[in-house]
Amino acid sequence: MRVALGISYDGRAYQGWQSQLSGLTVQDRLESALSQLAAQPITTVCAGRTDAGVHALMQVVHFDTSAQRRDVSWVRGTNTHLPRDISVEWAQAVPDAFHCRAHALTRRYAYVLYVSPVRPSVYAGRVGWVMHALDIERMRAGAARLIGEHDFSSFRAAQCQALSPVKDMRSITIDRRGAFVRFEFEASAFLHHMIRNIMGCLIAVGGGKRPPEWIDTVLHARERRSAAPTFAPDGLYFLGPRYDPRWGLPERTAAYDGLP
Amino acid sequence: MRVALGISYDGRAYQGWQSQLSGLTVQDRLESALSQLAAQPITTVCAGRTDAGVHALMQVVHFDTSAQRRDVSWVRGTNTHLPRDISVEWAQAVPDAFHCRAHALTRRYAYVLYVSPVRPSVYAGRVGWVMHALDIERMRAGAARLIGEHDFSSFRAAQCQALSPVKDMRSITIDRRGAFVRFEFEASAFLHHMIRNIMGCLIAVGGGKRPPEWIDTVLHARERRSAAPTFAPDGLYFLGPRYDPRWGLPERTAAYDGLP
Repeated sequence: MRVALGISYDGRAYQGWQSQLSGLTVQDRLESALSQLAAQPITTVCAGRTDAGVHALMQVVHFDTSAQRRDVSWVRGTNTHLPRDISVEWAQAVPDAFHCRAHALTRRYAYVLYVSPVRPSVYAGRVGWVMHALDIERMRAGAARLIGEHDFSSFRAAQCQALSPVKDMRSITIDRRGAFVRFEFEASAFLHHMIRNIMGCLIAVGGGKRPPEWIDTVLHARERRSAAPTFAPDGLYFLGPRYDPRWGLPERTAAYDGLP
Repeated sequence: MRVALGISYDGRAYQGWQSQLSGLTVQDRLESALSQLAAQPITTVCAGRTDAGVHALMQVVHFDTSAQRRDVSWVRGTNTHLPRDISVEWAQAVPDAFHCRAHALTRRYAYVLYVSPVRPSVYAGRVGWVMHALDIERMRAGAARLIGEHDFSSFRAAQCQALSPVKDMRSITIDRRGAFVRFEFEASAFLHHMIRNIMGCLIAVGGGKRPPEWIDTVLHARERRSAAPTFAPDGLYFLGPRYDPRWGLPERTAAYDGLP
């Protein structure tokens, strides 16, 4: 049988999602916990790999197993074998035809910025930090230029393995709450480092270093050197993929309401 | 000269505020950093000691020194010597007559609860966790019984050093945002473990184990055994003391807007 899981994690302690020889990744911890519960080796496929230091409120994975467990047992049982900064949020038996990556219609990410002359302390590792004021309207004007289908090569890391740099950016919203600014991105898919590279550019626009129209220049250049440096992973949260409602999977987890 | 500082910290890594031989407390780290910057030993007095695992968005301290530094240097210079989970948020020269503890008119704390069948992962150590649903109106009805001047002996830890168990509870607010419930307390002062013990009782009321009127019974018993067990420190945040405006000190820090 095939099972889909929603997973949340604090990425600070891990070398990203994808399994490595070090064993210090979220996938390594999850597969180890699932294999203990199932009493058989379990390998997972994920909807979207995250980098070192990036968090997830709803990563989605699927795996195949001959072990028979109730959905609630996949949740509670796996959590007893996981460190406390990783949780299985939900589990659901799915048809064998379901593929968590191939069937994701879009992915959603949030980036939380903390704007303050003093570093974040309580939120260290959980927010990106900018010392100078940012103009929200300028950043919105810059972000609007990224909406639609574009070649995002300028925002793509050299090691990106995506087949095509063309992605469809569905929406970018930017909202402030006091010293916190939350960016939400939804796109067909994201290239490696794409959001962190976009964040670097939007901060340059918001801080007055560049005009909003500069985003067009960067986009049209189609080369990484034209954009701003990659911004920190700290404030980046994978909110989850979106699927066709016929699969009946949750759209988000409860953790979402706790983001600044 | 006398200097007052606003300090924020993530309490997870520390054995509370107060200096200990282990050196693993927030006060130890702060005094070490200040002493390096001032090039002379510095001892601080704080507005409200916090327990192990309890956070602060605005602890206030004062200290005396012959070192001459600008306010901004006390902030930036001290932060370069502090671990990244402790920050000096502001510094202000104050009259020698100012005493951060004696002059605090009230203290404010927040407690953030996460209500979910699944543990918090991304918010681990930063929220208290309750697995079952809570009735907000019942908790408000229970909390209302604590408003005013009372003998809070039932909510007082055995090791509490306060001279009197009588405190004036000015307000308790309870607000929900999705799976997160934020409690805010303001009182003349708090006894040791007082909020964590109140939280244990309010959760018993909110979960239906006890009626709101039970809070009266606990309060009037004036003995610790009558109340619920001490709840976890994880979701507790010292928001800061309130002073007479004549001292010209900040009422809160930017970090406040990031609480769920």
